[in-house]
Amino acid sequence: MVCNFEMMEKLAVPSPTRIVLLVIDGLGGLPNPETGKTELETASTPNLDRLAGKGVCGLADPVGPGITPGSAPGHLALFGYDPVSCNIGRGVLEAVGIDFDLRQDDVAARGNFATLDKAGLVTDRRAGRISTEKSAELCHPLDGMLIDDVEVLVRPLREHRLVAVFRGEGLVASVTDSDPQRTGVSPRPVEALTSEAGKLADAANKFLARAGAVLAKHHPANMVLLRGFSAQPHLPPMTKIYKLKPAAIASYPMYRGLARLVGMTILDTGMTFADELLTLKQNYAGYDFFFVHAKAADAAGEDGDFDRKVKIIEGIDAALTELISLEPDVIVVTGDHSTPALLKGHSWHPVPVLLYSRWCRPDRATEFSESACLFGGLGRMPSTQIMPLAMAHALKLAKFGA
Amino acid sequence: MVCNFEMMEKLAVPSPTRIVLLVIDGLGGLPNPETGKTELETASTPNLDRLAGKGVCGLADPVGPGITPGSAPGHLALFGYDPVSCNIGRGVLEAVGIDFDLRQDDVAARGNFATLDKAGLVTDRRAGRISTEKSAELCHPLDGMLIDDVEVLVRPLREHRLVAVFRGEGLVASVTDSDPQRTGVSPRPVEALTSEAGKLADAANKFLARAGAVLAKHHPANMVLLRGFSAQPHLPPMTKIYKLKPAAIASYPMYRGLARLVGMTILDTGMTFADELLTLKQNYAGYDFFFVHAKAADAAGEDGDFDRKVKIIEGIDAALTELISLEPDVIVVTGDHSTPALLKGHSWHPVPVLLYSRWCRPDRATEFSESACLFGGLGRMPSTQIMPLAMAHALKLAKFGA
Repeated sequence: MVCNFEMMEKLAVPSPTRIVLLVIDGLGGLPNPETGKTELETASTPNLDRLAGKGVCGLADPVGPGITPGSAPGHLALFGYDPVSCNIGRGVLEAVGIDFDLRQDDVAARGNFATLDKAGLVTDRRAGRISTEKSAELCHPLDGMLIDDVEVLVRPLREHRLVAVFRGEGLVASVTDSDPQRTGVSPRPVEALTSEAGKLADAANKFLARAGAVLAKHHPANMVLLRGFSAQPHLPPMTKIYKLKPAAIASYPMYRGLARLVGMTILDTGMTFADELLTLKQNYAGYDFFFVHAKAADAAGEDGDFDRKVKIIEGIDAALTELISLEPDVIVVTGDHSTPALLKGHSWHPVPVLLYSRWCRPDRATEFSESACLFGGLGRMPSTQIMPLAMAHALKLAKFGA
Repeated sequence: MVCNFEMMEKLAVPSPTRIVLLVIDGLGGLPNPETGKTELETASTPNLDRLAGKGVCGLADPVGPGITPGSAPGHLALFGYDPVSCNIGRGVLEAVGIDFDLRQDDVAARGNFATLDKAGLVTDRRAGRISTEKSAELCHPLDGMLIDDVEVLVRPLREHRLVAVFRGEGLVASVTDSDPQRTGVSPRPVEALTSEAGKLADAANKFLARAGAVLAKHHPANMVLLRGFSAQPHLPPMTKIYKLKPAAIASYPMYRGLARLVGMTILDTGMTFADELLTLKQNYAGYDFFFVHAKAADAAGEDGDFDRKVKIIEGIDAALTELISLEPDVIVVTGDHSTPALLKGHSWHPVPVLLYSRWCRPDRATEFSESACLFGGLGRMPSTQIMPLAMAHALKLAKFGA
């Protein structure tokens, strides 16, 4: 699954046409055993069906057949980036997930508040899942520590989770985790995997020792475990690859963060899909590519709530009238991965894709559903091919070769 | 067609679920001109059709579109190994094909008894196709020769064929054939293609000279021609890649040999498919992956016997009740290549694949046939993707990325 950045850079031409990429998170599903229909097939979706009828459909594999994608690789593939070679470390993902303004050379790690016994062995990797409020309170004295010339910024996430960002010159993220991933053993020292990473390993170990001292009296949260040390990947921005002026509209921070990593402008928006569409309308003149992220379907799938996922898809479909009335030159509707309610989680099943433009060669898909997409004109493809196809249908790609 | 060993190794998690991979050798076919139906389409296969109805179907290319696979690349692809970069030399294949216990650094070559005239020119590359008994008799004095510190082990195959295994330190298989592949010329000297291969070339030439002397009085089999010098490929075992406990059930030695090369445990079994299914049943508790090999359909195809191939497929289908009653979590039924009776040999046509599990997204295939598979939910894929898909449907793969 090679991503053809060189080809895109060579062929992309700026043009006034507009592309809207609507990502319905966790879109693909599995059939309800009682009806034999998936969530998308069960939902009444007149707008999507009309777009499917005029456009072209298919099924996409975000990472590869059989591979269940996380949200980050799922989105990177949709933006045209090889999700394997461009994989993003856990620490960076957590940082961008809270809109943390990560700098180019920062190294971020995901942390847990944890419990150590008197012998220094981990008895609970999650410190009894302390509350988000408690976690915020405990992050406070850890935040802003200066270890030699390295500043450590600590931010609370949900419950026992936190993110620690190491900021300073010459930090290289190739270090091991302190989190042993099991109980009954001591936290591990952070070790450099390359000689360049020595400075970070040293700073991390000193930070952890000082964190342990600060937290000693805060049982059960008397230690911090760190894992997934990572720096931002150096991804060529979409502005350069596609010569687009891209904007992201996403109510959840992680998706804004992913969009920021590939060079999109992040637009302020509200928490609902209607808010997002309003943002789209208000900013429609200023950009030529919009990534619009609809989160709720995935959450319903994760909860195993088939009916709620159906309702959410129906709500998105109803709201689409707003989007369609803007008359984008290309509308792509797809997901970053499947989240079948039956599996209560992400899955490997390929994701339905709908591409609408006036330049689609018709197929026989007259509705937007997994079974119709199976026979769609786009066929089965890696998700990384969606961007080149969207660019082409927006007439933003020149001819290759004479 | 990249084989994602790194991805599999990273994501594979051991679990109690079980996968059965049933390989019907030479499964795919071409239509009988009188009926327009292939062997599989002609056969009455209620069990396979039921599995296809509940599962998901597709068509697989073992090596690539247009490429007719041998049995070794066909099987390696099914096990998830890139059949091109992992190709197995002829000598090794012949050795594993007789259950010869090949050691890591042995070099094996395929041999023919041949006829030389008085001038030393090859007049018959097959020595009049001498009988297997005669061949065994002639192998005897050649077997166990010591050439300096290199031992040469010689075993008869069918008719005029033999395998010669060179055992000793520092043997490198990069040497040319002595078999000139035509008559009217002398056998060629074995030549080293790299400086490291000098020792083997020298041993091979000395062996051939001594073989010629021993065989001088045994016209027409008065010489040995060698080709396909090769050592075992260093393939990472399936135990490591997939974290499976895999077992092979195959009545023919070559398939046992291939399974051994990828780290499967070889189970003793009988000569019929019923014997193999009994072996499966008896060993079902001990493993979580079973490769079951059904040979007879391929032989019927090679013989151009359309009707016999149909009957054999019907027999396999009838016996499947035994397999299905074990309730494997994933059942894959496919072939290592197509062997249309019309072509009397292996062919390049893609091979039908059926994958059954409770987590399949339904397609419209309600029977197992080439024409139904063409519209199946698995689409068209390289055979190397079958293992990742089987692993996914057995819930043996973790999510990729956060």
